[in-house]
Amino acid sequence: MAPKKMLMIVCDGLSDRQVKQFDMKTPLQAARKPAMDALARHGISGLMDVIAPGVIPGSDTAHLALFGYDPYKVYTGRGPIEAAGAGIQLRPGDVAFRCNFATATRDLVVTDRRAGRIRTGTADLAKALDGMSIEGTSVMFKEGSEHRGVLVLRGDGLDYRVTDVDPHQDGKILESRAMVPEAKKTAAALNEFVRRSYGVLSGHPVNIERKKQGLPPANIILPRGAGSTKDLEPMSQRYGLKCAAVAGVGLVKGICRMVGMDVPDIKGATGGLDTDYKAKGEAAIKLIGTNDFVFMNIKAGDIASHDGEFGMKVSVVENIDMMLGYVLKDAPEDLVIALTCDHSTPVSLKDHSADPVPVTISGGGARVDGVREFDEVSAASGALGRMRGMDLMPTLMGIADRAKKFGA
Amino acid sequence: MAPKKMLMIVCDGLSDRQVKQFDMKTPLQAARKPAMDALARHGISGLMDVIAPGVIPGSDTAHLALFGYDPYKVYTGRGPIEAAGAGIQLRPGDVAFRCNFATATRDLVVTDRRAGRIRTGTADLAKALDGMSIEGTSVMFKEGSEHRGVLVLRGDGLDYRVTDVDPHQDGKILESRAMVPEAKKTAAALNEFVRRSYGVLSGHPVNIERKKQGLPPANIILPRGAGSTKDLEPMSQRYGLKCAAVAGVGLVKGICRMVGMDVPDIKGATGGLDTDYKAKGEAAIKLIGTNDFVFMNIKAGDIASHDGEFGMKVSVVENIDMMLGYVLKDAPEDLVIALTCDHSTPVSLKDHSADPVPVTISGGGARVDGVREFDEVSAASGALGRMRGMDLMPTLMGIADRAKKFGA
Repeated sequence: MAPKKMLMIVCDGLSDRQVKQFDMKTPLQAARKPAMDALARHGISGLMDVIAPGVIPGSDTAHLALFGYDPYKVYTGRGPIEAAGAGIQLRPGDVAFRCNFATATRDLVVTDRRAGRIRTGTADLAKALDGMSIEGTSVMFKEGSEHRGVLVLRGDGLDYRVTDVDPHQDGKILESRAMVPEAKKTAAALNEFVRRSYGVLSGHPVNIERKKQGLPPANIILPRGAGSTKDLEPMSQRYGLKCAAVAGVGLVKGICRMVGMDVPDIKGATGGLDTDYKAKGEAAIKLIGTNDFVFMNIKAGDIASHDGEFGMKVSVVENIDMMLGYVLKDAPEDLVIALTCDHSTPVSLKDHSADPVPVTISGGGARVDGVREFDEVSAASGALGRMRGMDLMPTLMGIADRAKKFGA
Repeated sequence: MAPKKMLMIVCDGLSDRQVKQFDMKTPLQAARKPAMDALARHGISGLMDVIAPGVIPGSDTAHLALFGYDPYKVYTGRGPIEAAGAGIQLRPGDVAFRCNFATATRDLVVTDRRAGRIRTGTADLAKALDGMSIEGTSVMFKEGSEHRGVLVLRGDGLDYRVTDVDPHQDGKILESRAMVPEAKKTAAALNEFVRRSYGVLSGHPVNIERKKQGLPPANIILPRGAGSTKDLEPMSQRYGLKCAAVAGVGLVKGICRMVGMDVPDIKGATGGLDTDYKAKGEAAIKLIGTNDFVFMNIKAGDIASHDGEFGMKVSVVENIDMMLGYVLKDAPEDLVIALTCDHSTPVSLKDHSADPVPVTISGGGARVDGVREFDEVSAASGALGRMRGMDLMPTLMGIADRAKKFGA
């Protein structure tokens, strides 16, 4: 039988816990979602520990696992993923950091970790830092979305095992420390970079203008999440698949690029609550035409959860369902579709949790079980049973008639 | 409580996918099978990934896993298993190959990979090759069933990591290559053996007679599937069990011998669609009298699947069920019975697939769950959950009150 094409739809943080005030339902159980339920009815369902039972997945480690890469082996910190998301091509030996543009006093006491959620001017500020050299270590700096940026240190003898400068709350900045002797040079360069950033940014025209407007200046950089890139075997090689991704949020785009997916920019795909669902669905259908495997991430559910908004999360479910409806209507008949989440983000917690997520696979050789709805409780009785995130890609490959035989 | 005896029945390739034209049923769901369903009703069921999710098991690697041996550690290729099946006692360092008797031109271009599916005379042809010596490497050769044979190279400095000579289709024979430097001597000896086989066989009386009858001569040997035996700890030692097997097909017999089972020849057990089910059932009951663990393989379901015959596969299910009926009637009351498959072979694919297989265990300390039928969908809701093939023997040992305590 011919191998089938595959579409993996990951609803970021959509999985939840039941909430007493809402009739003991999860947002998935409370929403009207005919397309998701049709997928469950015509496919095979289960519950998935994306990393392992009792481990709260980050969006980054979760996506690595969902693509079949062991995050315990390949993940060294968020910095490299942000760098990939910002389009910086890391080399082996580089150390990358996530950063915030922040506001600090002359004594380097942080008074606003997001510099009043600065939205404009960071590109100019970044340019003023980019290209700096610190005792033979060269500095690359690039702005990210809103108050975010990416720092890359490049040079001989660097090591990512250093502690954060970002104090993660208002207060004196932290001195980065080497966690291993090999990282001493990196910690020293990092501390020096942060001190110099205050000098460079304080007098920058962007900040002079902000002060005039009564806005907190973005006068210091707070790096965190140091990491080095590992050479990941691209998915094309690992699975023999031509892969593309539909994603709005930088972190997810970064991971997709790291595993060798084609990640086109899609107009209207913001990674926010205002994302253009229809544009994403249309992009997915188009990419299925020219790829073997298409991945789609929709971030909005996670955002509603972080805000603790049950009703908003129900709306997100219904919006995603509408988009899934378009996709199902236009998808090739033999497409294998997997619908799941990268982690649970209960609205009651406003944060990620270790609760397993529902997963449904339909099409190709997928057996049809008795599950009739896509939610956290219905999925538990499905024929996929309880699975791990790392097993999703192999399972999909099997159902799409692309698995390899071991033995004779 | 006294330890119980165990019977493991493996229905080769019987597990399947639902087929649209047959009312969205699998052959197991479509068949009348009162004995299998009784087993499910009185036992505990689950779904089993025989190797791992998304890995298509070969019959060889699958049986190793079902007996509790990690195929990733002990499997080096099919040659040694065929050799064991043919009754050749391999020594460490020997390299064994599966072979075909084939027809080739003077330029060693293969025109028929099975020499017209030769059925007689191969024992004489094998004798003419057996005992050859190639620069200190001695050659053992034994005929197998129909056009098949087994080659064993014995001597110093051999290594199984060589490529096949068999081109796997009509055309020029391949030159075997060493995949590692240590295997150069083996590749050279193998290539020399194949060349000489053409010389020895071309003028052999069996082939002169075949030519007279207008049949293609079996004038060359095509080796493939090189492997070396690993010293497998026998099941008697690993589990403290006296073990015997009821199997018709050479490959499965070979694995059973490799793990130290007693494998008597059973009249009428052919490993084909014409196998004598009743004879197999009676043999199993007899062996249970003198052993702790009896294994039974029934190959017919896999054959029907490779032919893509849904109706024939349903008949196979019903024949196996009848046999199971005899067994249940005559079995000792406290026998622990496991019923499962080594892999799925969907009739829609005509080949093995990575889909998990149903498993039911009844008797001894087996808990009774709510599953009432033995099939791929019903099993998914059983209390065994989703398990791995490597866990079947330990699970059986537990239910048969033979497991060991870890700790105090």
